[in-house]
Amino acid sequence: MVDCRDLDRAARFWADVLGYTAEGEAAGDTGGEVYRSLYPVDGRGIEILLQRTADAKASKNRLHLDLRTRNLEAEVGRVTALGATRLTDDPVREEGWAWHVLADPDGNEFCVVLPPDVYWTGQ
Amino acid sequence: MVDCRDLDRAARFWADVLGYTAEGEAAGDTGGEVYRSLYPVDGRGIEILLQRTADAKASKNRLHLDLRTRNLEAEVGRVTALGATRLTDDPVREEGWAWHVLADPDGNEFCVVLPPDVYWTGQ
Repeated sequence: MVDCRDLDRAARFWADVLGYTAEGEAAGDTGGEVYRSLYPVDGRGIEILLQRTADAKASKNRLHLDLRTRNLEAEVGRVTALGATRLTDDPVREEGWAWHVLADPDGNEFCVVLPPDVYWTGQ
Repeated sequence: MVDCRDLDRAARFWADVLGYTAEGEAAGDTGGEVYRSLYPVDGRGIEILLQRTADAKASKNRLHLDLRTRNLEAEVGRVTALGATRLTDDPVREEGWAWHVLADPDGNEFCVVLPPDVYWTGQ
């Protein structure tokens, strides 16, 4: 479950970022809709449920998504073009891993993560 | 990624709640370990990565896990016995769904959710 202020905006963003599709039509925010479900297009992955909330984000989320990629700069470029904000100037590097911290259009943090080569080759 | 203060405690809790298993041995918290990976025992589901952090939780997480169940009271009883705290006295009920809000040992909210019958039968 991901909190957001605008279901259409959040649905567009997370569907494009994750390769998910929204359940039903985006009928415009009439003020009544509270939830929107997103499902992986290829059927692989968990459901993402968006929840419209009025409260603003107050501090760092203590739960976040890590999106793993083989090309850090390309993936960061792709998701910022979709509406993410990059919060780190340079990649954080730790034990062979490198990542950027970003925020979705509602300020919810997530990371785009480049694992070490051994991650893909299975040691 | 789930923030916690004690990797062993969080790993035990989430592994038992989700049917996951921790990567490697729980060697006791020597102060050096920062991350612990949890994987689904049956191979079905995403990885959960635990991150040891010193900062305390300050406000409601804007991202949380929903755990769906066919038996709300039994599942709430199971996870509270594992160390969760129930935050709702009575189930929240909305459009055929019912759920309790709980917190993990670090205060991170999650929900145990009873969908309507139609959810399981596929309409």
